[in-house]
Amino acid sequence: MPRIIKHPSVRRSEVLAAARALFFEHGYDSTSIEQVIVRAGVSKGGFYHHFPSKDALLEGLAEAIAAEALEASGELLADETLNAFERLDRFLAGGRQLKIEQAPQILSMFEAMFRPENLALYHRVHHAVSAVMAPVIAQILEQGRSEGTFRIEDPEAVADMVLALAAVSHDAVARLLNARTEPDLTRAIDAFERRMVAQSIAVDRLLGLPDGSVRFIEPGFTEALMASRRPPAS
Amino acid sequence: MPRIIKHPSVRRSEVLAAARALFFEHGYDSTSIEQVIVRAGVSKGGFYHHFPSKDALLEGLAEAIAAEALEASGELLADETLNAFERLDRFLAGGRQLKIEQAPQILSMFEAMFRPENLALYHRVHHAVSAVMAPVIAQILEQGRSEGTFRIEDPEAVADMVLALAAVSHDAVARLLNARTEPDLTRAIDAFERRMVAQSIAVDRLLGLPDGSVRFIEPGFTEALMASRRPPAS
Repeated sequence: MPRIIKHPSVRRSEVLAAARALFFEHGYDSTSIEQVIVRAGVSKGGFYHHFPSKDALLEGLAEAIAAEALEASGELLADETLNAFERLDRFLAGGRQLKIEQAPQILSMFEAMFRPENLALYHRVHHAVSAVMAPVIAQILEQGRSEGTFRIEDPEAVADMVLALAAVSHDAVARLLNARTEPDLTRAIDAFERRMVAQSIAVDRLLGLPDGSVRFIEPGFTEALMASRRPPAS
Repeated sequence: MPRIIKHPSVRRSEVLAAARALFFEHGYDSTSIEQVIVRAGVSKGGFYHHFPSKDALLEGLAEAIAAEALEASGELLADETLNAFERLDRFLAGGRQLKIEQAPQILSMFEAMFRPENLALYHRVHHAVSAVMAPVIAQILEQGRSEGTFRIEDPEAVADMVLALAAVSHDAVARLLNARTEPDLTRAIDAFERRMVAQSIAVDRLLGLPDGSVRFIEPGFTEALMASRRPPAS
């Protein structure tokens, strides 16, 4: 059989697709690099060329998912009839919708990342996702600065700070993911939503908006996100 | 010679003191665990009992320095004549003074931490220092909330966010530490100070204060911090 020559970026995408499927089926911890290599049909050398470690693979996958989220928002980001607040609001709403749609996948992929012993992995993924998101957020903020929608001076610095605030919810997300009983999950959802309200207000203030302007969550969002963790109603 | 029995916490402090001296003399990267063991006069087992790795040692040292900074502010934090803003302002001023006084030690100790390949170590240290600082910041914020100095609802969440914002200056600090020429250092100081202004304004807003209330730096602070990196005037 002749060896099929593929472009390295195609191989990379195939490895990521295989990892995504396996992490979803078995979880991050229970998936081995060997399984990803077999599923993707790449050589060992080919795999390690793109991803020197399993953590690098999760980082790459998180980056790819962030890039997909940006692509899904491409039309919105290009729509010149929107002011900066509308753009930001719809961008956040799109992110919420995507999270609800892909909730089981996201939960299975990121559960390991939120374990206390994997704090370094979490920061690595957060850093990679922030790097993908930062220019887009900064661009929306720059629009808001120049049109006067946002009261800010340094859009790049504020974009970095908005993204950094996401890491503050780490412990609340970990509690959500690790809730093992119904009452635990209910309490974790409540604590998470309170954190999200505090973070929304923080972002309002960083942008010079009245408290309650930016919506990070909506009523029912966290329940919908965690629905797969609830036993089916009997 | 009879074996001297010391309390484990005394041994731990001795190891930290030895590490602190060696990191200052040779830098973090050029210091080996072996050297720390010899200088501290502990057994290998005694060392690893407290610190499973060199990174854990730097984390422990950063925690100890943060705890010292809190202790140095003990009087201020107990002074009931101060309102929350005065308390926060003086606490930050005390932190700046301590940093200037210990600048060469701090630079030599933390330089390795700000290298791109040591991002995980940086987050580990930031997390440990934040854990030490969070209750004290939250207490000041709670005072401000109850007396009406700060316009906040959730002091613990806001304390976590204020501490998280510190991580946003990572790249600007890395640039400061890695500046190798005079013009590079001048530009890095300028970029760092602009970031600090943006972060000060962010904290003002998180606390519901007018822009320009909280001072993270003062004129000349960064030059004084980096003075040991400037060649002596000829």
